[in-house]
This record gives sequence, structure tokens and C-alpha cells, in this order.
Amino acid sequence: MRTLLAGLLAAVALPALAQPTASPDPDQAIAALRTAALEDDHAWRLTEDLTTEVGPRLAGTEAEARARDWAVRRLTAMGFSNVRVEQFDMPVWQRGREQAELLGPYPQRLVVAALGNSASTPAGGVTGEVVAFASVDALRAAPPEQVRGKIVYIGHDMPRTQDGSSYGVFGAPRRQGPTVASQKGAIAIVVRSIGTDRDHRNPHVGTMSFADGATPIPAGALANPDADQLERIFARGQRPTLRLTLESKVTKGQSGNVIADVPSRDPAAPAVLVGCHLDSWDLGTGAIDDAAGCGIVTAAAKRIMDAGQPSRPIRIVWFGAEEVGLFGGLDYRKRHGKEPHHALMESDFGADRVWRVDSRLGAGREAEGKRLQRLLAPLGIVPGSLAEAEGSDIGPMLGDGLPGASLQQDGTRYFDVHHTPDDTLAMIDRKQLQQNVAAWTTSLAVLAGPVEPRPVGPRKRRR
Amino acid sequence: MRTLLAGLLAAVALPALAQPTASPDPDQAIAALRTAALEDDHAWRLTEDLTTEVGPRLAGTEAEARARDWAVRRLTAMGFSNVRVEQFDMPVWQRGREQAELLGPYPQRLVVAALGNSASTPAGGVTGEVVAFASVDALRAAPPEQVRGKIVYIGHDMPRTQDGSSYGVFGAPRRQGPTVASQKGAIAIVVRSIGTDRDHRNPHVGTMSFADGATPIPAGALANPDADQLERIFARGQRPTLRLTLESKVTKGQSGNVIADVPSRDPAAPAVLVGCHLDSWDLGTGAIDDAAGCGIVTAAAKRIMDAGQPSRPIRIVWFGAEEVGLFGGLDYRKRHGKEPHHALMESDFGADRVWRVDSRLGAGREAEGKRLQRLLAPLGIVPGSLAEAEGSDIGPMLGDGLPGASLQQDGTRYFDVHHTPDDTLAMIDRKQLQQNVAAWTTSLAVLAGPVEPRPVGPRKRRR
Repeated sequence: MRTLLAGLLAAVALPALAQPTASPDPDQAIAALRTAALEDDHAWRLTEDLTTEVGPRLAGTEAEARARDWAVRRLTAMGFSNVRVEQFDMPVWQRGREQAELLGPYPQRLVVAALGNSASTPAGGVTGEVVAFASVDALRAAPPEQVRGKIVYIGHDMPRTQDGSSYGVFGAPRRQGPTVASQKGAIAIVVRSIGTDRDHRNPHVGTMSFADGATPIPAGALANPDADQLERIFARGQRPTLRLTLESKVTKGQSGNVIADVPSRDPAAPAVLVGCHLDSWDLGTGAIDDAAGCGIVTAAAKRIMDAGQPSRPIRIVWFGAEEVGLFGGLDYRKRHGKEPHHALMESDFGADRVWRVDSRLGAGREAEGKRLQRLLAPLGIVPGSLAEAEGSDIGPMLGDGLPGASLQQDGTRYFDVHHTPDDTLAMIDRKQLQQNVAAWTTSLAVLAGPVEPRPVGPRKRRR
Repeated sequence: MRTLLAGLLAAVALPALAQPTASPDPDQAIAALRTAALEDDHAWRLTEDLTTEVGPRLAGTEAEARARDWAVRRLTAMGFSNVRVEQFDMPVWQRGREQAELLGPYPQRLVVAALGNSASTPAGGVTGEVVAFASVDALRAAPPEQVRGKIVYIGHDMPRTQDGSSYGVFGAPRRQGPTVASQKGAIAIVVRSIGTDRDHRNPHVGTMSFADGATPIPAGALANPDADQLERIFARGQRPTLRLTLESKVTKGQSGNVIADVPSRDPAAPAVLVGCHLDSWDLGTGAIDDAAGCGIVTAAAKRIMDAGQPSRPIRIVWFGAEEVGLFGGLDYRKRHGKEPHHALMESDFGADRVWRVDSRLGAGREAEGKRLQRLLAPLGIVPGSLAEAEGSDIGPMLGDGLPGASLQQDGTRYFDVHHTPDDTLAMIDRKQLQQNVAAWTTSLAVLAGPVEPRPVGPRKRRR
């Protein structure tokens, strides 16, 4: 299919764009870069090496600092310019001992993990009757005496979706549940994991925060099979008693963004920013979230750099502390948000194939967005909006009106793995990762291109 | 397919068997029982209820005792006769705190679980360099100085197999590894999980024992992705250091077999024994191993009982303490192994469909085995050996020469789940479970049949 489309495209007469330094057939050059990128190995090696040689890298911890050191070494070794770290301070929440023990009516352990910013239980845990709700709205509607002094459970029924939108729709138990439970006097809360793997006992963590005035309470996520188990107990008309231990602590720490450049022929031209995030949740090795994203965008930038010199600079940003509140994106925005950027892009939705391209490049640049669509089509990528772009760390700057583009990945199986202990290299499909690299290489060739041979210095040109 | 075959079979003239009390067309009656069993609900309910209302039930523990009490109540409520427990004493190994922490070169935690009968580490764990071997043979061949004072790791490459035979072939690291490592002076051993799920971090436990003279050492299994991680570190030429905490204790306890009968027209006839095991490993709720087995055989016995009265008694045995050394099977053999049994059967290979029937019913009973084959064929079950039968708890008695039959289940995905925390109800396919019940009901109708209407008492016959 891809080959057929590529053939068709090559045969179609494309309108020439006004690019004074472009070679005679710029689309042909991009097609060659795109095809070569389908055999890319940089992204896999970056993903494997980061998840192996650093592993989990919770924001603000010593592990994330090791990841930054690793990143500086690696980006430098790959030949990128001006590799630097922009550090910032942040609060650091870290989990300790965790256990959920049903004391009755059917004594057994359930698999639980604390949500980020959960209050800590005492060492011996808290013990209480569990009261179950099907939704946050049902909890909101409950009389406080039904909740006071108890442990709240909230379920939901999140399905898989290609665009991941179900994560927004079904995430309320995690995001608002703890606050509402606290306001009603609950001593703790456990929610059904906001994840779509219903079969494995991989609790899905993630951050939440208590609304102003709500006293933080211990808040955890049960693995889906354990949530099923609890619901079966309720279905039997029983009132389970749970001893919940979720120890945690909050300290101060530092995170930082690791930044590297691909220099351009015109050093004054606004950069194309390609981002990902370096931090990960602590239970897995952060392979799909987001080592793969760093692998993808960095591999694409490397391929452009190796092909020659782009017209505009490419700025690679491995953001720090995304998971716990977009700290890296906000720090970058504070420092650089007023600088002109030609486009902002970020890869942070796993490693499965790109299926659609959206862009919002601003007034007078629709043709650039359409060209992107046309040159991505041979990868099976469908044209999306020309008035939308999104991203996690870059989201606030896109909100400020900076131009951007989004390569939308297939998220069908993303929430099976995301934020769980199962987010490891084992979940990455090498072929789909390569398709991502091809899409990003193509996008960079369009947005930062054309790519021209580097000026030859006094040394003999490499063959 | 099934319907087609059933129709064909009904149309074929079958040789009449010499059964004085049989109704005019016994195969038709069996076909009706078989078809009805495909809608069975008893097996699902037993499996759901046992895994929910008891959950994990490690042999010899208070949880297994609760399971026996539950079993007695349930089997009695279902209407079986003479429900009883035959208790026995046993040693009980139980896990405590477990952690595997790579200290270098890439500090991170790995997911580990102790193997049954592992020695306990001190509270702070043991720390040592890890030395890796591709097989037990490679470890055997290593000079002791390469192993002494270190932590041994052994890998393997177990594939999925329909008959589960890879579990035997690739299980040596768990079964012999700890002894060989100990004999060479290792301070501990971790093996790659003897399971086929390569993607999820579900360590595969199971029992092992140290050979005479070998000092017990701590022995654990790494989840497959964690074994991959360790192997990647070795592939980088590194020598990892591991702090391994595997606390455990051994006490004395009791287990027992729960036994119930379906009375027959001839109380003196040898029984058809249908077995399963009630105990489970501790990390999951023992759904495929072996709540489903108990559900299947008990549902089949219940269906026969509800259909009338069999010619031979059916003896249901929910064996205790199978996982940790076939204690229940050996106790039954000691007490009853000299009694004549018409056939021994056991369901202990999950809940996926039966695909083959084997039997070894003894001299002069080949026709009975062939009839079994013929009446199971409509369920898509292929004829297997007439000279073989197997089973876990019944294995020693089959070895003594007692007659038996085996309904072989598809084991392709069994070792993805078996002995891991993921062995929960979520893994059971209701349709395949029903096919099992149909196969067992058919088998009981053949082996314990024919099933005749129960004699009508002074009370009005129920409509």
C-alpha cells in the first residue's frame, strides 16, 4: 500500500513552493529521506538504551538526574550542537510501602498503587469499610454520612479508543475523586485503574491534586482485576473492610529540560521544536511513556542532520517532569515562550503508528500544512485538521498561539500499558516505531527544510 | 461445525453396547446431556465464587482451610452426598517481603518473587554480583570460582505449546538451578520466569526442592521483562550487582482433600473419580489453576446427578496441597489407592477447550475408550491414545496401574498465566469453560452411565 502510494505521488505533478535554495525536486528528496527512515535504528537504540541504562526516572529524583546526565552524553555523542540542561526546582512526591488487604468478608490482598500526590497513610495503614460508587457524580450525590470515616471506591468502564479520548472521559475518578471523597469526610480512596488492560494486575498510576481546601487523603488505584474483585464482593451484598497502606513522602528536588540543536543555514531563522519527555512514572521503565517519543524525535533530527543542513534550526527538547504537572514545558515557556518558533511538535503517545496529521501553522501557512499532509500520505497517514495542534509539554505554548503540528499516533493499546509497571521495552513494536521516525523525518524535512548539502570545509568531503 | 457433526453422528448407526439397564438409545441421551452442558452455568459460578469468596489459597494455610470450609458448604448445598474432608499434616512455606534492587551499573528495581521452598534472606537481603548462564548445563559446566559468593541468574527461551510440554523442557532452571547453584557456592539464584508471557511483569512462581546435601539458598523468579532487562545489561558487557530480599518462613500446617459423591444404582460398583485441586499459588486467585478445574468436574457431576442416577458412583475429589508436592493426591492414594476405581480423571490445565481425549482403561475395555472418543467428537475433540492417561494428583495412582482417562486442554496460553499474579477470573473464557463441562459430562455419562431416572418415592414426582 505504501509503495503503491509512493509511486502514485511520484507521478503526480506537485506545485513548486517558493524556496530559493531548494534542489530541483524537493519532494523527491523528502521521499528518499522518508523511505530510508523506515529502516531507522536510532529510535530503537535510544529507547532501549534509556530504558535499560537508566530505567525508571521519576521527576525530581536522583534517577531523573541520572537520565539527564545520560541524555547530555548521548545527544553530544550523536553530534548535536549546544547540548545543555535548563534546570528548575520542584516538589517531589515518592511512594513507599503499599498494600491493600481485605480483612473481610473474604480476606485477601488486592494489588494497589498510590496515585501521585496521595497523602501518606501511617505505617500500619488505615482501616475502614469500603463504600462503592459507579462514578464521581454518584459520589457527589451521596449524603456525607454515607462516606464519612470510610474508604471510597469509584469504578468506571473505560474502553479502548484510537485517539485516547476515553482517558479524558473516564479519568474523573482519579482526577476529581480524591477531592470529592476528602470533602465528604472519607479517610481514603481507591479508584479503578484508569487503564484499559482488564486482564493483568498492573495498577495504573498518574498524578492528581487536591482542590484548595480539601485535606489530602491517601489515594490509590486498584489493578483492573482487583477492582473487578471488589465489585464482585459488592454484587454479593457484602460490605468489605480494607486495610490500606500507602506510604509516601514529599521532598524538594530539581528537574530540568535537556536541549540540543541541529544548526541551520540561517542561524537567525525561528526553530522547529521537537519535544518528548525524559521523566517517567516509577513503576515501569517509561518505554512507551516516553522514551520512545524521545527516540522518535531525536532519530528524525539525527537523520536530517546526517542528510545535510536544514534551512531552519531544529531544537530538540527532552522535557523534564512532564508526568507530575508539565513542569518542564512550563519552565521552557517561561524562558523561551516569547521567542519566535517556526513550529512546535511533541511525541508523547507511545510508539504505535502515526495515523493522522493535524497542524495549526498560522495565517498564510496553510499550504505548508497541506504539503505536510501530502508528503505523509505514503505512510498511511490521513490528513486531519489544519486549525488544530496539541501536545503535552508544548500545550501551554500552543495555547499562547505559537504554531504547531501533531502526528497523531494510534492509541488503541496505549492505555493498556501507560503508567503501569508493564510500560517496558517489551511493549514496543519496532516496525511501528520506524513508521513514526519516517513521519517525523518527513515533517522535519518539510518544516525545517529544505535540507541542503553541508558546505565543504578544507577537509576532503566524505564519500 | 459442532451442530453438523452432531447431526451426522445422530444419523449414523452405532453398535449397541451390552448394557442391561440402558434405555433404547443411550447415545441419544448422552448427546442431549452434551448439548445442554454447552450452556452450563455451574462451572462459571463455582469458579467465580471460589476465586472471589476465598481468593488465593496457599496449601496448608488458613486460607486453604477457609477454602475447604467453603467447599464443604458448597458441595453440600449442591446436593452431593457424603461430603467430607480427609485431613493431613504438611510443612508450609510462606513468602514474606520481596525485592530485587540492581545497585549497579544501572540502579533500578526488578520484579521478583520467591520460588516455593526458597531459603529466606536476612531482612536486609543479600548483595552480590550476578553471574549469568544460558542454561543449567552451562551452570553445571562453570568452574566453582566463577559462581562462589555470587548470585546466579539462569535464562531460557520457553515457547508456547499446545500441550504444555515446553514447561517440562524449559523448567530446569527452576527445578535444578537452585541445587546446582548452591552446590557451587552461590549465595542466591534468580531464574527467568518459567512462563510464556514475555510482555507483562508477572513473575512465575512454583515449587522446587534442594537435592539432599545441598544447602538451601534464596531462590527467586524474575518476571520475563525483568529477565530481559538483566540480559540486556549483560549484553553491554556489564557485571550487575543485585541486592535480593526474599524473606520466607516454614511452619507446620494442615491440608486436606474435600470429597463428595454422586450415589449410583449399584452402590458396590467401583467409582469414577473426578479430581481437581483446591489449593492455589498465593499471588493470584488460582482461577485457571485450579478453581476452573473444580468448577468443570463438579459441574459435570452435578449435571449427571440432576439427570438421574448413574450406574456407577461418581466421586468428586478436590485435592489439597497439589501445588507444593501433590500432598493431597498422595494422601488419597495412601487411604484409597487399593480400592477398585472404574476410572480416574482430573482437570488441572486451565479452562481452555478440550482438544483431545486419551484413555487407558485396561484390558478388555478398549471399546469403552473408543466410545468415549466417538461421543466426544462432536465437541471438536480428537481421538488420542487408548494406552495413556495422565493427571497431577491422580498421577501416582495411574502409575500404580489404576485405569484413567484424560481430557487434554489447549495449553497454548496456559503458561502465560499459570502461577503468576495474573491467574484471576479475568483470564477465563466462558465459552471454552462450557465446552469443558460438555466434555466432562459426556465422559461421565459414558464411564459412570447409563444415567437412569431416579426411583420415585412416596412423594409426588417433581415436574
